[in-house]
Amino acid sequence: MRIAGEATRSVWVETDGWSIGIFDQRRLPWRVERLVLRTCPAAAEAIATMATRGAPLIGVVGAYGLAFALHADSSDAGLVAAHALLAATRPTAVNLRWALDRVAAHVRPLPPARRAGAAHAEAGRIADEDEAMNRAIGAAGLPLITEIAARRGGASVRILIHCNPGWLATVDWGTATAPIYRAHDAGIAVHVWVDETRPRNQGALTAFELAEHGVPHAVVVDNAGGHLMQRGEVDLVLVGTDRVTANGDVCNKIGTYLKALAAHDNNVPFYVALPSPTIDFTVADGIAEIPIEQRSADEVANMTGRTADGRIETVRVIPEGSTVANYGFDVTPARLVTGLITERGVLAASRKALAGAFPERAGAAE
Amino acid sequence: MRIAGEATRSVWVETDGWSIGIFDQRRLPWRVERLVLRTCPAAAEAIATMATRGAPLIGVVGAYGLAFALHADSSDAGLVAAHALLAATRPTAVNLRWALDRVAAHVRPLPPARRAGAAHAEAGRIADEDEAMNRAIGAAGLPLITEIAARRGGASVRILIHCNPGWLATVDWGTATAPIYRAHDAGIAVHVWVDETRPRNQGALTAFELAEHGVPHAVVVDNAGGHLMQRGEVDLVLVGTDRVTANGDVCNKIGTYLKALAAHDNNVPFYVALPSPTIDFTVADGIAEIPIEQRSADEVANMTGRTADGRIETVRVIPEGSTVANYGFDVTPARLVTGLITERGVLAASRKALAGAFPERAGAAE
Repeated sequence: MRIAGEATRSVWVETDGWSIGIFDQRRLPWRVERLVLRTCPAAAEAIATMATRGAPLIGVVGAYGLAFALHADSSDAGLVAAHALLAATRPTAVNLRWALDRVAAHVRPLPPARRAGAAHAEAGRIADEDEAMNRAIGAAGLPLITEIAARRGGASVRILIHCNPGWLATVDWGTATAPIYRAHDAGIAVHVWVDETRPRNQGALTAFELAEHGVPHAVVVDNAGGHLMQRGEVDLVLVGTDRVTANGDVCNKIGTYLKALAAHDNNVPFYVALPSPTIDFTVADGIAEIPIEQRSADEVANMTGRTADGRIETVRVIPEGSTVANYGFDVTPARLVTGLITERGVLAASRKALAGAFPERAGAAE
Repeated sequence: MRIAGEATRSVWVETDGWSIGIFDQRRLPWRVERLVLRTCPAAAEAIATMATRGAPLIGVVGAYGLAFALHADSSDAGLVAAHALLAATRPTAVNLRWALDRVAAHVRPLPPARRAGAAHAEAGRIADEDEAMNRAIGAAGLPLITEIAARRGGASVRILIHCNPGWLATVDWGTATAPIYRAHDAGIAVHVWVDETRPRNQGALTAFELAEHGVPHAVVVDNAGGHLMQRGEVDLVLVGTDRVTANGDVCNKIGTYLKALAAHDNNVPFYVALPSPTIDFTVADGIAEIPIEQRSADEVANMTGRTADGRIETVRVIPEGSTVANYGFDVTPARLVTGLITERGVLAASRKALAGAFPERAGAAE
């Protein structure tokens, strides 16, 4: 997609053919700054500090991180240690572990001397596949929007989006944003309600993306979605996910479950967009089985933004004497999900539909 | 209640016997600053800018504002003009209009020369009655907490609270906080989950209040409540309200409806605390009939807090190129409300229960 009119992916190989470049997403949307990564600890730190973020994207960065580690130590022990280091950076994200497992399985049979190069190539394939999957998600989701547009007779299709399941969180296109970009590019009028997405305000990234691409949108606080749906101002909810269980339960950014409840209460379709690596066929009941990251209190207590005179400042917004609890994700039960938009089409949020569409993955998990 | 160990109300008459004092709530919880009001425009500005806030409290400040206006112009025309000016400051808040109507009705039959003093005295009675109502709400709500405490065998009763239905929003005690303060003072262990309450972060005020009173609590983002309920971490939801309809629909701070949906989905009791002036017997269907304030985009786009070196700074947290929509309230339908805690006891959220408990108000509205 585009930043300042220039087409780019969210991760790329630098001109040296080995290092990778990413946007420092802690500086967005205020400043567009690029980071170059060339070691495993640097990749791990970029993931842990959320300089890079988004389930599919951290899978790719993690995969390159493994290649960097093997460049320094190509032994079996080095592979195991680097895998563990990278996997621990974001325990909830299944894509990260999936990508690390894939690269590790690919290089383990190889002679140590060939492992780093093979890992690097495999990371590149994961990136290309992610872009292709998101293109396909866009194509699969587009008819949901065109059908509503037809019903609305030319009035904008109003889509509510939570967090940043956008191209900045993937390699390109985004997941939940892919159908929106496709629809916009096809000349369909859309208006996107962008949830602020506390505590890390990833909605600001979604708003930044949409603004750079020229898609009409308005940012709202996370509290507003129920009201908007109640008043008939939302035609469709689109979210991404960090992990979908074999049953179709959806683990996503904290607050997603509340939007799903509101969509259900107001008969608004609630769709989840995901590339299939996000499906975890080893887990069935999302609420019982998925551990939820508790993150630093600072994410809630502090907010960073730009002052009127252009400085980036961090301010504390919670009284000093108060404790803070910070849960990263919640689980939306499958019963509240209208459908899952995957690279193989729109599926019901059910074991049968998921296993039917991805038999090779479901079978392997048994 | 207490600030820095000192017992105080949230509005008081100054030593001159006429001006009133309030806390500048735009500075809380960072700085405790008092404002003195002695004119109607100053009172109106304090309400409109949310230097003073909370449905019951702005009713009292508005009532004093009418007294100040009558001191300057005690004519019928002056009364009408001041009533209109003050009522327009916060159109959603029914208590404000109720208090203004009450003072106006009280002074209209009087000779102009006696109107200002009579209005001032009536405002004082409204303040005293508010404190008494909140004490009674605390007494009515206390058994809800003691029953849960008994079931939990001494473990803390975990209460989720949205916005600041606390003593800073009323004259004293608060509405939804009144049962909590009563329970805490009675030695019952409570733990309060405090919703941040974007966009104005009134949760910081609730956290400040609770910290000053020594009540254990943790601030969470508005997105977290569903997850907490899903994991069995909430025993009771307590909220306040700006307006309750004759049917029991609850208009309250944006996001309340989402918490009510989550409580319903997880069998968590959802109670609304209110003094009876908050009931609007002239309105039945809250969703269809209550206009929702759209407030300034700046409330969403900007956040104010304290920097590490102690300065109060405002930072913009939304990209410059993005539009913002800011809805102040939503409506929780009566079907999602377990009960209404009033100064006359806990009632079902139904026309029958409300009219039965407040026949003089229900009858007058017909």
